Amino acid sequence: MSDPTDFNLSCPIPIQQYPHVLMAHGGGGKLMHQLISQMFLPTFDVPTSLQHDAAVLELTPSNRSPKLAFTTDSYVVKPLFFPGGDIGALAVYGTVNDLAMAGARPLYLSASFILEEGLPMSTLWQIIQSMRSAAQIANVQIVTGDTKVVDKGKGDGIFINTAGVGIVECDRIISSQSVRSGDAILLSGDIGRHGIAIMAVREGLGFETTIQSDAAPLADLVLELLAAEIEIHMLRDLTRGGLASALNEIALAAGMSIEIDENLIPVREDVQGACEILGFDPIYIANEGRFIAFVPQTQAEKALEIMRSHNASDDSNSCACQIGRATDNNTMKGLVTMVSRIGVTRIIDMLSGEQLPRIC
Amino acid sequence: MSDPTDFNLSCPIPIQQYPHVLMAHGGGGKLMHQLISQMFLPTFDVPTSLQHDAAVLELTPSNRSPKLAFTTDSYVVKPLFFPGGDIGALAVYGTVNDLAMAGARPLYLSASFILEEGLPMSTLWQIIQSMRSAAQIANVQIVTGDTKVVDKGKGDGIFINTAGVGIVECDRIISSQSVRSGDAILLSGDIGRHGIAIMAVREGLGFETTIQSDAAPLADLVLELLAAEIEIHMLRDLTRGGLASALNEIALAAGMSIEIDENLIPVREDVQGACEILGFDPIYIANEGRFIAFVPQTQAEKALEIMRSHNASDDSNSCACQIGRATDNNTMKGLVTMVSRIGVTRIIDMLSGEQLPRIC
Repeated sequence: MSDPTDFNLSCPIPIQQYPHVLMAHGGGGKLMHQLISQMFLPTFDVPTSLQHDAAVLELTPSNRSPKLAFTTDSYVVKPLFFPGGDIGALAVYGTVNDLAMAGARPLYLSASFILEEGLPMSTLWQIIQSMRSAAQIANVQIVTGDTKVVDKGKGDGIFINTAGVGIVECDRIISSQSVRSGDAILLSGDIGRHGIAIMAVREGLGFETTIQSDAAPLADLVLELLAAEIEIHMLRDLTRGGLASALNEIALAAGMSIEIDENLIPVREDVQGACEILGFDPIYIANEGRFIAFVPQTQAEKALEIMRSHNASDDSNSCACQIGRATDNNTMKGLVTMVSRIGVTRIIDMLSGEQLPRIC
Repeated sequence: MSDPTDFNLSCPIPIQQYPHVLMAHGGGGKLMHQLISQMFLPTFDVPTSLQHDAAVLELTPSNRSPKLAFTTDSYVVKPLFFPGGDIGALAVYGTVNDLAMAGARPLYLSASFILEEGLPMSTLWQIIQSMRSAAQIANVQIVTGDTKVVDKGKGDGIFINTAGVGIVECDRIISSQSVRSGDAILLSGDIGRHGIAIMAVREGLGFETTIQSDAAPLADLVLELLAAEIEIHMLRDLTRGGLASALNEIALAAGMSIEIDENLIPVREDVQGACEILGFDPIYIANEGRFIAFVPQTQAEKALEIMRSHNASDDSNSCACQIGRATDNNTMKGLVTMVSRIGVTRIIDMLSGEQLPRIC
């Protein structure tokens, strides 16, 4: 490996095509998917069974001991404060939600800060107060951490990493591989708010109403569904890449076809309006408090009732609904199709390129 | 909290004195200690019992289930590659070592990347190959991760966060509070190499020999000591702030006096020479593969034999030795004193200000 050219040839990402990291490599779409699936996962020999928002781990060979969920995310959102949240709350909820997506009860978080020299101390204070409050709301304890400072101009105010551990409260395996033909796809609320909230602040867009991020912890609702014995096959929160990218990843990993109906997807009027002005499609916009659940069709109504009655901070869960289903349609294997508002069926691809950088 | 002035008054760091984050807030010395002990720990209500390199956690109320160690560190070292290591290996060993310092067997790591737009893809490839190899050497599995990309000029190539979980393999509580008067303080090898290796590359210093970083995983050696029933009271790896800062933190937390002898501290001749040229004291220099252990004096020789015979990659453990002891000298409570080479006893303070930024 001493000849750098030989070494580069072994890189699974074609270096001639992508000699440098692009913004899109972090955008939640095709390039990020390629980076993770071709470079990171094979290099670290991560078994398919662990490739989820949170890895589910056996701590000891004995099955007396509980299964652990373990996850991490770094947060680089810009601006640091936005309507409905800030980087600190996001760093807590995002990691809590990844644990919830593995059917786990979040217990402990770590918090690691990369501060840029010159960050106002009062900004740091405000952010960690927000983390404290988010941790209380999400019922998790921050137990360990780290602080690094980088020179002015070598960071961007503050980046936060949180990792989380939780106890899996579900005997079934929640994963793409568990999706079955006929499963109903349930969406927990309206989509598009987080991305549009960030975009509006960043671009100085003045809409008639201030669109608030949907950032919220999801674990309580998931645990309620599990406690009600809803047979959840798969869960995914709809962050970078939005609903469309999440569905594509699941269709691909499950080897299933996914069919959704645009008419059924709840999008607030102001979000829809902002999307039209900005030229975005809400199904690609990042959310920070929304998820999809794959459940047997027979349990869909019961699950939706729980979702709708869940005591959330606003009425956003009231519009939880079924947006489609998984099928074993062989000609459409691994693909997502959507019936549009005007009744046309088209294939929905994963996000390609970069839509909204640094959304989380 | 709507009036920002009132809000700032509640900040435990005096904002008038420190209106902005300084490099020294990440330097491992007094300011970092202040930031963590006055701002982070009280805000997150972290119990004293968890304030260690890794938090030791109960997963379930039953004591049938094993205790979990959980830790995190972000790595921002500059340059990314240096003699004896690189940011990838450091990110694996550093977190493995924090778990080891809690008496835990490291099992799983997360890996989260903050990439700067424009980072050469080949650099990323080289770094993750190094992480893979370090994980194999340290016998841990990387199971979950995250990738973010920030705009060019808003990062510095690559920052890596790793979090780690492990199983505590020791019934006794390893903590500063467990240190007893009369405990021997054992040092696992020579000090100062990591910091000087980084500094030499960064400043383009050409010493006669290339000084290699001491970066190495420490868990195997710690587990060997535990298996040999060495009654370890406290462990600490000697990273930012070096030996002097580690001893100060322990003296303070334990409410003990610590006495060490400079003549007993192994420092390689080339490291000593470089320190003299650069005006550094080796006891403040960061290491990435060295630790101190507090053990009963009666077990010191047995522990040192194990340390010296440990199958490390080089002979660096051969100079493991006792450098001092803890006492309950009341007039010196919370202080570290050192008998210097010329026989003078002086108080050794925690690192103050910033010595070597971005060392890890």
